[in-house]
Amino acid sequence: MTMTGKHLLTLQGMARTDLDALLDRAQQFADGADARGRLAGIAVCTLFFEPSTRTRLSFQRAAQRLGADVLNFDAATSSTTKGETDVDTLRNIEAMGVRGFVIRHREDGAIARLSEVVQPGTVLINAGDGRSQHPTQGLLDMLTIRQTKGGDFSKLRIAIVGDIRHSRVARSDLCALRALGANDIRVCAPASLLPDAETLRGCAVVDDLADALSGADVVMTLRLQRERMQEGLVSSLEDYHRDYGISAARMALAKPDAIVMHPGPMNRGVEISDDVADGAQSLILRQVANGVAVRMAVLEAALAG
Amino acid sequence: MTMTGKHLLTLQGMARTDLDALLDRAQQFADGADARGRLAGIAVCTLFFEPSTRTRLSFQRAAQRLGADVLNFDAATSSTTKGETDVDTLRNIEAMGVRGFVIRHREDGAIARLSEVVQPGTVLINAGDGRSQHPTQGLLDMLTIRQTKGGDFSKLRIAIVGDIRHSRVARSDLCALRALGANDIRVCAPASLLPDAETLRGCAVVDDLADALSGADVVMTLRLQRERMQEGLVSSLEDYHRDYGISAARMALAKPDAIVMHPGPMNRGVEISDDVADGAQSLILRQVANGVAVRMAVLEAALAG
Amino acid sequence: MTMTGKHLLTLQGMARTDLDALLDRAQQFADGADARGRLAGIAVCTLFFEPSTRTRLSFQRAAQRLGADVLNFDAATSSTTKGETDVDTLRNIEAMGVRGFVIRHREDGAIARLSEVVQPGTVLINAGDGRSQHPTQGLLDMLTIRQTKGGDFSKLRIAIVGDIRHSRVARSDLCALRALGANDIRVCAPASLLPDAETLRGCAVVDDLADALSGADVVMTLRLQRERMQEGLVSSLEDYHRDYGISAARMALAKPDAIVMHPGPMNRGVEISDDVADGAQSLILRQVANGVAVRMAVLEAALAG
Repeated sequence: MTMTGKHLLTLQGMARTDLDALLDRAQQFADGADARGRLAGIAVCTLFFEPSTRTRLSFQRAAQRLGADVLNFDAATSSTTKGETDVDTLRNIEAMGVRGFVIRHREDGAIARLSEVVQPGTVLINAGDGRSQHPTQGLLDMLTIRQTKGGDFSKLRIAIVGDIRHSRVARSDLCALRALGANDIRVCAPASLLPDAETLRGCAVVDDLADALSGADVVMTLRLQRERMQEGLVSSLEDYHRDYGISAARMALAKPDAIVMHPGPMNRGVEISDDVADGAQSLILRQVANGVAVRMAVLEAALAG
Repeated sequence: MTMTGKHLLTLQGMARTDLDALLDRAQQFADGADARGRLAGIAVCTLFFEPSTRTRLSFQRAAQRLGADVLNFDAATSSTTKGETDVDTLRNIEAMGVRGFVIRHREDGAIARLSEVVQPGTVLINAGDGRSQHPTQGLLDMLTIRQTKGGDFSKLRIAIVGDIRHSRVARSDLCALRALGANDIRVCAPASLLPDAETLRGCAVVDDLADALSGADVVMTLRLQRERMQEGLVSSLEDYHRDYGISAARMALAKPDAIVMHPGPMNRGVEISDDVADGAQSLILRQVANGVAVRMAVLEAALAG
Repeated sequence: MTMTGKHLLTLQGMARTDLDALLDRAQQFADGADARGRLAGIAVCTLFFEPSTRTRLSFQRAAQRLGADVLNFDAATSSTTKGETDVDTLRNIEAMGVRGFVIRHREDGAIARLSEVVQPGTVLINAGDGRSQHPTQGLLDMLTIRQTKGGDFSKLRIAIVGDIRHSRVARSDLCALRALGANDIRVCAPASLLPDAETLRGCAVVDDLADALSGADVVMTLRLQRERMQEGLVSSLEDYHRDYGISAARMALAKPDAIVMHPGPMNRGVEISDDVADGAQSLILRQVANGVAVRMAVLEAALAG
């Protein structure tokens, strides 16, 4: 499969058959398949150069369910790595006998760069690098859509709303959606939060949120970091909510059985309103549950057998 | 039992039979009963919105002895929960498949509030909320008394000395003592550190420490937070120690076989002097050992079978 | 063996037979000997009064491979131990049923001091105390030498270069080297970074790095803390590197098959240059791997059976 040398660095270029295989296995784990013992005696380290307790916990739970030994290294706050390169930190923990690394990094492409220096048999899983990729988030989003809308993505109208420019989640989602055959993807954001053309390949950019949501099967909204205001990319949270926030009134434009997704953590009242976040169309907690299942499938594919 | 829906939120209103059942099981664990496998495959998360390494470690050890998978989330210091409500944080980790939560919170009643939003089958254990309750501390204190003084609490004179007003430990202790039949409870503190009348129900408030200790079987002293001085509730640590500190000389007023307890961590030389803390009557480390046993009993009752 | 009462406090005075036994067992673990179950059900706590993520991870991995339950307590950053003595912190966690403690401390001799207050059956492993000792680092260094140069240390010329004065690693190495029969140890450092005479017993102090390296079989370099400049003990990092840095050009003076070791983390370009750190003679990552094996042997000797 295209988990390069078993690493999972990006969803860019991953073949549909590989995606489907991972999602099929993830579905088994979501259905409660027993996995204890699959990674018995294998050490997995969460190595986060950028903090993220939530993603770390999800990978940790996935590794536990597979019976792996888990080590956690919060490199962002460790005083022992001061002045040490990320390569040296990684190689050191690798030398302790750790076979799988779940890595988050502020730098675009860092996990791919790090994958070049490890030993054969050591596997890196990208848990988010800069604005580039967050492949397991992309996979869990696809699993969530597949569970509710079926496997034929070519029939779906998908709206992606919000800060796509700074979002590794959106980049991974778009790679996966295209690979799975989605061809009616509508992207809606202020011009200041739209990404480059390559990211938008195959998408329709629409200015008006109403156009984006109209007839949609799937509405994906994204977290708006408050720092976008300081950077002048957004005038105010109130304006943003008015123009791009997903509210129940807005959702009335989508199909009646449309689903709403968000990668979390939510800024309630900004990119999403309470009535939607907690409403019947919200699959936000289902996404979290699927996250563990997808990460189990990825860790197993990378490390088992 | 009154572990409401299997949650353990408070000792308020817990029936004697339920208390006794938990204490009986805890005694078995204190005696070394094997428990490995009781919670195999079940995930327990310590979710602390207020930091407390010591209580977290004790619950963690209890969960380990039961064979549970343990996740730790220090919500007090996590940057990933900034701007997220405690409800969303809890629901997210719950969605990862965690069945038991050990929660500490600064807010009175927070664990009860959170218990209303979780799924059936998810269980919350209160590890301390505001000034309200710390039920497992209450239970471990009762176990410690029972081990040394027997199960008939109606025969015991019990002195509780110190900052009861701000103490969730004292509140849980008082609920449990009353439920177990204690009827000679003497409370002693500066007026500024005495609690409301409901908390003191069934207790005699005595002004003079000598009166409180006279003939006591059990002396429970409480930590004095240094911030009580800044708040003007205590004039000085020296004065406090002179008037309310438990010293060997003071202990001579109690029964010769009286025991001394403290919930830790101690301010030596303030609420307790070294000779008492390290003396033969001190059961402070026994309390800590009993803490693991009691927490095992609570986690098992909440999550096993 | 001289693991006093099974504690491992220092390599000072450890007999050659005891060293050899630990190294023999460590070699088995380095070769992949299965150890799961050796410490099943036994709780080991890493108790660090001075932070060190790297050493903690190595002990944690060692304990995992032995099947122990691991608890971590970062006492350096815990708010719950404020105002509490290290003795009380240790005794509290001991009371929770923890049998093995891996302790790091800023104070010279602290682990020996703490070993006097624990119960029989509780075992302390020194993971570094002040500038005194870091016995498992000494052991892993010996294992690394033995693997590549054989067990007859009397045939080896060993150069130790750098800040020996502030180094617990160097002190443990020197104890172990002498016990194993090394008699050609050359020490090289600025006068400001040389230790007391007792530490240097049996060593030749040489002023010129060329003399130290000439004909050496083993070159051990040490981390230079940047604070040595602020303290005025070193004029500049550039000068230090020129006079005491291990570069490929310098290594040409040693034997062609000489090995280079460093306890990590490295200051590349200061005490060691990139070409050496990443070169064929460098055993730095082998040291890290051996660290897990040695710590397994130490934990097993202290706690199993």
